[in-house]
Amino acid sequence: MSTRFSFSLAATDGCARTGTISTPRGEIRTPAFMPVGTAATVKAMMPESVAATGADILLGNTYHLMLRPTAERVARLGGLHKFMNWDKPILTDSGGFQVMSLAELRKLTEEGVSFRSHIDGSKHMLTPERSMEIQKLLGSDIVMCFDECPALPADHDRIAQSMRLSMRWAQRSRDAFGDRPGHALFGIQQGGDIEELRGESAEALKGIEFDGYAIGGLAVGEGQEIMFQVLDYAPGMLPEDKPRYLMGVGKPDDIVGAVKRGVDMMDCVLPSRSGRTGQAWTRRGQVNIKNARHADDPRPLDEHCTCPACRSYSRAYLHHVYRAGEMISGMLLTWHNLHYFQELMAGMRAAIAEQRFDAWEAEFHATRALGDIEPL
Amino acid sequence: MSTRFSFSLAATDGCARTGTISTPRGEIRTPAFMPVGTAATVKAMMPESVAATGADILLGNTYHLMLRPTAERVARLGGLHKFMNWDKPILTDSGGFQVMSLAELRKLTEEGVSFRSHIDGSKHMLTPERSMEIQKLLGSDIVMCFDECPALPADHDRIAQSMRLSMRWAQRSRDAFGDRPGHALFGIQQGGDIEELRGESAEALKGIEFDGYAIGGLAVGEGQEIMFQVLDYAPGMLPEDKPRYLMGVGKPDDIVGAVKRGVDMMDCVLPSRSGRTGQAWTRRGQVNIKNARHADDPRPLDEHCTCPACRSYSRAYLHHVYRAGEMISGMLLTWHNLHYFQELMAGMRAAIAEQRFDAWEAEFHATRALGDIEPL
Ligand SMILES: [Zn+2]
Ligand SMILES: [Zn+2]
Repeated sequence: MSTRFSFSLAATDGCARTGTISTPRGEIRTPAFMPVGTAATVKAMMPESVAATGADILLGNTYHLMLRPTAERVARLGGLHKFMNWDKPILTDSGGFQVMSLAELRKLTEEGVSFRSHIDGSKHMLTPERSMEIQKLLGSDIVMCFDECPALPADHDRIAQSMRLSMRWAQRSRDAFGDRPGHALFGIQQGGDIEELRGESAEALKGIEFDGYAIGGLAVGEGQEIMFQVLDYAPGMLPEDKPRYLMGVGKPDDIVGAVKRGVDMMDCVLPSRSGRTGQAWTRRGQVNIKNARHADDPRPLDEHCTCPACRSYSRAYLHHVYRAGEMISGMLLTWHNLHYFQELMAGMRAAIAEQRFDAWEAEFHATRALGDIEPL
Repeated sequence: MSTRFSFSLAATDGCARTGTISTPRGEIRTPAFMPVGTAATVKAMMPESVAATGADILLGNTYHLMLRPTAERVARLGGLHKFMNWDKPILTDSGGFQVMSLAELRKLTEEGVSFRSHIDGSKHMLTPERSMEIQKLLGSDIVMCFDECPALPADHDRIAQSMRLSMRWAQRSRDAFGDRPGHALFGIQQGGDIEELRGESAEALKGIEFDGYAIGGLAVGEGQEIMFQVLDYAPGMLPEDKPRYLMGVGKPDDIVGAVKRGVDMMDCVLPSRSGRTGQAWTRRGQVNIKNARHADDPRPLDEHCTCPACRSYSRAYLHHVYRAGEMISGMLLTWHNLHYFQELMAGMRAAIAEQRFDAWEAEFHATRALGDIEPL
């Protein structure tokens, strides 16, 4: 196993890329989808089950973990990997995005963000330096720069000011991160939906030098059309020989469109969150298992899926346990959704390697267009 | 595998017995603890995980299943085993006990019990004949007679009248059950805490003839002392060559005391219900994982336990995920509790087989008396 962090591209097909990120904790096949383990657990899943779906890396949330159980406690207990029983790589976000969306009494200054915990009202401060410290205490393999971004739409000045603050914070993050062999620090491009600002941000980040580059400030309300417009130019502004990570994306068609445009990594709570609310994602689109049409349906969610939910249970069962409020409902649907998302990534990796991404994408959209199987 | 239902005793030690119930769906090692899968799922567990704890048989609740998803629907879908992905034996209760404790507007007559569903207010009727029909539709391997019992304490006349009604219902259950090779029908002894009535009930049941005999009407508020007093004589009134099943019991020390007195089978929601409320059962007694003393404790719940919760997680993690309201809290603690209960049964089976039950029991109580490990 590698003792340092590295990225190698194996093949490209148009803008789409496939390759491998090597870390001391294992390899990450790209394009990669990272399930979200907010509070040291991917909700409703055992970590070995998450690994069984094909996930090579998880995302942990700095904001949640710093408040409970606290980064210092996780460090005393041997780090986040040991704490949550996940020995593959972990990427942690910086806390910047979540503190602005979840915390109370936020105050943003050049120094950082002061806020009160949404859990117990306690006072905290997040700065680039403190974010680096927390992510180090957690033992994260891929550390994200501390940044800030506005929801879209926003005007040019708001986006520019926020991006330039984030670039100053990127430098402070880089300085505070120091030299940690085997661990990576990713910069985050900002600039909203304004190409010129995206370019300015990319240049700033390349000047600082990072192990990977994220595209931030998307999936914040702008819709797929604008997001894809930005992805038509933003990934190309970033170094070709480093991984590109699109944060917080997304639905299956968002993911496919992002990979097509040169993105290597993504994360989203969608598959696990949907799984707990009776929503399944399949090759043929979304299935609402709550719907009465499933009550007597002996067929699996997706006859081609090899996940435990599809292999061993009928739609009728999944409908029943959802209606009865049973935990196994969230457990099975989350497993299926994570399995489907990983299968999607595996399909794209193979297609890119074999230079047939366009055909793969056409079939992806054609299968979805069929819609769910007809009721019996 | 056996094509019929049978029971063979392998060894006895005092009143304690160990043996095997053979069914077409597999063997049940006795004394056996049956996890409760009320609504076609053992809450918070995948069925393969339940099997991994060592459970040979599950209990399903007729009352819940008849209301949702309904017995007719389960039958159309291939029966309860297929529906819930559990191919080992299933015992179903008759619905009699739960309809009296959960349903609304209950009306008890010689014919049966009319009631309204606690879920949607719909009107239903349970009779011995309907209970046999429902349990057949579910595909239960061990079917229980339809019966009724008062909470204790209750006066002699109330207990006697109820017991005699249950004995008339036992005859009607036997008649309605008919001849179903490979499936068993168990009679249920009633008579509360009155020895003479327990004797009368046992004689009535033996006159009808069943494949096994349950001891009902205990664990209904009487406390362990009175329960053990009844168990000092009640099992001995039942045929020696048939399994004896104590319904709804219990805590680990209840279970040990019942096995000591000649009980072969038990069921209880305790391990799974406790697991969802932060309560763990260990060799050294109960552990409340919510307690702040666990927040920094790197040790497992029980260093000798081989369940996933103890093998891969600290008390600090279990504390954290409970406090954070994460589903994995209930998943891990339920797994541990079911594992512990099955280990208890395995320990007793081995001890009885080797004629050292008294020594085993002394150690069981001595270990519990130590209490939980000291805080760090
Ligand atoms: Zn599936
Ligand atoms: Zn354990």
